[in-house]
Amino acid sequence: MAGCASPVTADFYRGRSVLVTGGLGFIGSTLARRLSVLGADVHVVDGVIHDTGWNRFNLADSDVRVHAADVRDAYALKPLVRGRSVIFHCAGQVSHLDSMCAPFADLDANCGTTLQLLESCKQHNPEATIVLAGTRQVYGRPQCLPVNETHRVNPTDINGVHKAAAEFYALVYHHAFGLPTTVLRLTNVYGPRQLIRHPRQGVLGWLIGQAVQGHPLQLFGDGGQVRDMVYVDDAVDAFLRAGAEAACVGGVFNVGSDRAVTLKSFAHALIEVVGHGQVEYVEWPADRQAIDVGSVVLDSSKFRYTTGWTQIVSLDDGLRETVAYYRRHFSHYL
Amino acid sequence: MAGCASPVTADFYRGRSVLVTGGLGFIGSTLARRLSVLGADVHVVDGVIHDTGWNRFNLADSDVRVHAADVRDAYALKPLVRGRSVIFHCAGQVSHLDSMCAPFADLDANCGTTLQLLESCKQHNPEATIVLAGTRQVYGRPQCLPVNETHRVNPTDINGVHKAAAEFYALVYHHAFGLPTTVLRLTNVYGPRQLIRHPRQGVLGWLIGQAVQGHPLQLFGDGGQVRDMVYVDDAVDAFLRAGAEAACVGGVFNVGSDRAVTLKSFAHALIEVVGHGQVEYVEWPADRQAIDVGSVVLDSSKFRYTTGWTQIVSLDDGLRETVAYYRRHFSHYL
Repeated sequence: MAGCASPVTADFYRGRSVLVTGGLGFIGSTLARRLSVLGADVHVVDGVIHDTGWNRFNLADSDVRVHAADVRDAYALKPLVRGRSVIFHCAGQVSHLDSMCAPFADLDANCGTTLQLLESCKQHNPEATIVLAGTRQVYGRPQCLPVNETHRVNPTDINGVHKAAAEFYALVYHHAFGLPTTVLRLTNVYGPRQLIRHPRQGVLGWLIGQAVQGHPLQLFGDGGQVRDMVYVDDAVDAFLRAGAEAACVGGVFNVGSDRAVTLKSFAHALIEVVGHGQVEYVEWPADRQAIDVGSVVLDSSKFRYTTGWTQIVSLDDGLRETVAYYRRHFSHYL
Repeated sequence: MAGCASPVTADFYRGRSVLVTGGLGFIGSTLARRLSVLGADVHVVDGVIHDTGWNRFNLADSDVRVHAADVRDAYALKPLVRGRSVIFHCAGQVSHLDSMCAPFADLDANCGTTLQLLESCKQHNPEATIVLAGTRQVYGRPQCLPVNETHRVNPTDINGVHKAAAEFYALVYHHAFGLPTTVLRLTNVYGPRQLIRHPRQGVLGWLIGQAVQGHPLQLFGDGGQVRDMVYVDDAVDAFLRAGAEAACVGGVFNVGSDRAVTLKSFAHALIEVVGHGQVEYVEWPADRQAIDVGSVVLDSSKFRYTTGWTQIVSLDDGLRETVAYYRRHFSHYL
């Protein structure tokens, strides 16, 4: 699917040196590929940490330069941040469930990496624009829908706590040290290059992987929880705009969809695209129910007004692209 | 000064086994001494980490059992949390300024300790009531005064970020794992046993130490920032009530004062008690101004209604006790 960046944004990145952390992962790699098409000098750093979303195939046949290094490693990071114009921080642990079983690993992967990135920029490149991949998980269970950026921060799981801390770091380093940082709070993103081999890193990727394999799609409860879903190309466009738009600096922005969809509807749309399949309703596992946030829909008006961003790709189109991708490349995502 | 616990609370602790983390520090040691007077079996653990607020003299002549161990050490913590009825978590790094220069040390001292304490309790003593010493710093610059608990969390410094994360941990471990946790957001506390030898751990202690030594009291700007101040015995009473009152479990409570005082008024009250001295107004140092939160006054109604707590000690009485203490024991706090 064609990238959605407006011509102005596209022009902004031509010839610029950019760094994407977590660049072998789902959003990071898609962003890196797009930046490369736009003519940027693209470097990615990835910790290639066991059981996270990195996949070397995500950057196969691209001219993106890949540095395998832990973002918490100050010595490795110093030459990687120097000279960059924009840094997109996509590295991190994203599994809510894993964060509850291994909270210290989540602390390292989210707080440790973000703090080190900011410290390295403060010391070696304080002018680089830093765009942080945040999450709507920081809101926890919404008090009202849709959720805008003034909603209280009240995470229900350890991953949400650390992602909230990472956001706060970015704002503190902006206000106290002048670093140009921006936080995007992303809703559920889906599309090619996502980890689909286990159900601990996002329900959408898991359901897509199951559907492509012809397995039944298991939903917890009645599948009635509402989500807003954004196709990865639209999410990448949001990052590009955030990195190019000076008015975003120091801000926190929701990036979600107006189109609220139940997980049940998502599953049925997916079955329609795949051509066959079935939904199974199962009881909530206790460990998942304990940290579930219920229905969530983000209000992205602030980001739309600030950058002109809008969601382009419909759920049906996005699912068609995604299913076609995994059918072509399934073996690389097992 | 006599402790302020109501008879009900006093009776609650008789014969109970309690643990105070950071128990050689200012509030921790005062709390431990009070618990000992109330007939509790009191253990404290303290990391005795360089340049933090621990002081062995704080527990001199008491029958409190002191364990020198790092709260991040799971093996050390296991026997210390087992069998305790109530755990007061006062360990941590409290310097806002230090957190900006050494953010990783602050991460370890605040997030690392709190997460390890909660993990240890989850594994070895999930029924222990845990009362967390939080801070009004999590609010950052207030949007309105007085600040109640619904005010947004928006810290201006790294210490505030980590203290916010520590609070969120406590709530996540309560909601997801059933641990009975309570968070107290303390305002500026002053009194005997506070670190007064450098100005990086709270302006009140520093001014008191300077006054006792006959040095001029330096205030930044015009000294017009408003603070609410609580004498340590009143703060200790808040901890005792929080640990004994089931209605506090899962809650977050401000512990502050109705009596708003400018730092200038505080300095003059202090000079009055000491008998001599002078105030000097100096320019804001840039590193302090960058993270200053301006005027702050907490609304503690929620805690008052829930526990019956109220501030007993007036500023004048508190300052008299404090100055007398440091005059007697000054050499131990240099």
